[in-house]
Amino acid sequence: MKRLNSVPKADGFRMPGEFEEHRGTYIIWPERPDNWRLGGKPAQHVFVQVANTIAKYEPVTVCVSKEQYSNARHLLADNVRVVEMSNNDSWIRDCGATCVVNDQGEVRGVDWKFNSWGGLVDGLYFPWDQDDKVAQKMCELEGFDSYRLDDFVLEGGSIHVDGEGTLMVTEECLLSEGRNPHMTKEEIEKKLCDYLGCEKVLWIKEGIYNDETNGHVDNMCNFVRPGVVALAWTDDENDPQYARSKAAYDYLTSETDAKGRKLEVHKILTPKPILITKAESLGVDAIDGTLPRQEGDRLAASYVNYYTGNGFVAVPVFNDPHDQLAIQKLQELYPGRVIEPIYAREILLGGGNIHCITQQVPRGNRK
Amino acid sequence: MKRLNSVPKADGFRMPGEFEEHRGTYIIWPERPDNWRLGGKPAQHVFVQVANTIAKYEPVTVCVSKEQYSNARHLLADNVRVVEMSNNDSWIRDCGATCVVNDQGEVRGVDWKFNSWGGLVDGLYFPWDQDDKVAQKMCELEGFDSYRLDDFVLEGGSIHVDGEGTLMVTEECLLSEGRNPHMTKEEIEKKLCDYLGCEKVLWIKEGIYNDETNGHVDNMCNFVRPGVVALAWTDDENDPQYARSKAAYDYLTSETDAKGRKLEVHKILTPKPILITKAESLGVDAIDGTLPRQEGDRLAASYVNYYTGNGFVAVPVFNDPHDQLAIQKLQELYPGRVIEPIYAREILLGGGNIHCITQQVPRGNRK
Repeated sequence: MKRLNSVPKADGFRMPGEFEEHRGTYIIWPERPDNWRLGGKPAQHVFVQVANTIAKYEPVTVCVSKEQYSNARHLLADNVRVVEMSNNDSWIRDCGATCVVNDQGEVRGVDWKFNSWGGLVDGLYFPWDQDDKVAQKMCELEGFDSYRLDDFVLEGGSIHVDGEGTLMVTEECLLSEGRNPHMTKEEIEKKLCDYLGCEKVLWIKEGIYNDETNGHVDNMCNFVRPGVVALAWTDDENDPQYARSKAAYDYLTSETDAKGRKLEVHKILTPKPILITKAESLGVDAIDGTLPRQEGDRLAASYVNYYTGNGFVAVPVFNDPHDQLAIQKLQELYPGRVIEPIYAREILLGGGNIHCITQQVPRGNRK
Repeated sequence: MKRLNSVPKADGFRMPGEFEEHRGTYIIWPERPDNWRLGGKPAQHVFVQVANTIAKYEPVTVCVSKEQYSNARHLLADNVRVVEMSNNDSWIRDCGATCVVNDQGEVRGVDWKFNSWGGLVDGLYFPWDQDDKVAQKMCELEGFDSYRLDDFVLEGGSIHVDGEGTLMVTEECLLSEGRNPHMTKEEIEKKLCDYLGCEKVLWIKEGIYNDETNGHVDNMCNFVRPGVVALAWTDDENDPQYARSKAAYDYLTSETDAKGRKLEVHKILTPKPILITKAESLGVDAIDGTLPRQEGDRLAASYVNYYTGNGFVAVPVFNDPHDQLAIQKLQELYPGRVIEPIYAREILLGGGNIHCITQQVPRGNRK
């Protein structure tokens, strides 16, 4: 498939909202023992649950290293497609292709430069060479041409679009020292609009407290549909999350989107602080250069890290009193979709959640 | 995708003739330096030519190890799909899925047990664990359910069918000690008919002289169409190939196919004996357990190792006076197809030819 040097927006392409129809979903199988406890086995079982749940609604492809291929094939449902793909870890939201479409329904991939959430400044592991090839391999599998950016670092979890010209990001992430320090905010904004087919960027200050991704927007807020945003929230003014959510709420409710609409912002209460236990910490290999998982560290838990697909919303739950509130709120926000709660502490322990481990391929006419 | 325990013939499935319409072609990228000289570079360039030529006529997928992925993607034409797949070598005819179809156009894979052409008896390298997973991975990529045989060793190059109930094999290969010594000829015949949807097996005695595959039929003869066979031939009675071709000719012309038709057998003169040169031999790593490539060894060169696809026939040529004869003869036999000659000495040096490095996926309705 072709590598393109042109610009998606100029070519008539835009990134659709996640809530628009999908062709399917990609997931990468977790295994690295310095990030996933107990050799990845507990996480693998939750990834199976995520994949099998989504596969009830749309085609799912799980990408697996050669070492884990047979095990993954054995554990996943028959209707899940399993393909071999080397990787450094399992965050396809961040290293996978960002798909864009044109009005004729053609789909192409945007293949951002990936540097493990901060490269040699504050990246989370080294090397990340295989992750940086995932987007291209995903495009090859689907038969898509792709735009490769060798000069711009971005992860898919650091952007959310409404599909109608509006993009949400956090300054904490997009302006971090480990991404694109050679670029001004205005230059970054232009790059984003050019490659996502957007007109307006909403710059939220910060994401979730202690989020190792430098505050990815996808853990903090999401477009339910154009004009409607779900935002992670806490009423506890002593929680360091409070000021972050309050600033985002005040900003979003004072802004308009690319179409000039005021935004309707819905608060989703986060679970109570979730800390890594001693047993959990002891299950992770200690390796120089990989972010350690230490007892007592607070995890960046948020229900907003949910994934929207054809007829469903897959939402992480934590065995917390706020689980039911989040499920109810999402059911109100997505009246036409089945809410699929999945107990996701094991994904959270690895540093993200359901949205971070999934990547949608939008519908479009097959070539 | 599902692993099936039933039997293709009982399920209404048959292997179509290679000359029937294809959905596409699979190829594996060559790289192992103990089989392909000079680190595989000369062979890779010929594989590129084969892939790019076929891609003019039908979709081509090239399967590549993670180490060679970027190099292969760089060298192959844009319209070739490149996917990651571990392997032990590049003979997808032998380790890939044998596709079967039913009358509704559904396609399934047959995943034979693969043991490197003879396992611990006279196999060509060790281990062969990744090769034995290629058929399943190919089926996953295509979304096909597959029949796995854990109790029956077979390579795709050791069979040819006419799509109407007739199968050709060689006794030299199918009855070899390294395949299925626990089974009688009758048991093998039944297994073949059950899994390929055939009624009659034509047992040719031997294949091409000094063929390291124990005389695969696909280097010796091929069904042009039902009732018509192309056979490798030499007029030189002093050539050890003569008795082999003569025996096959006498046998085939005395036999009928599954439909009761007499067979029309066309002789294709082989090139003059082709020997490995000293320079070629010196380019191959010497590794214990891998068949060595020694100066002066005679290669199993045959034009019959051609590949038939949608509107074309890709035929190996050797810079030999018989090249033009073979091309002319094949053009007569395939009046509706473009004959695509490819100089293929580099593939031959690795132990096979164009048919051995290709595997067709027959047409059928997409699910």
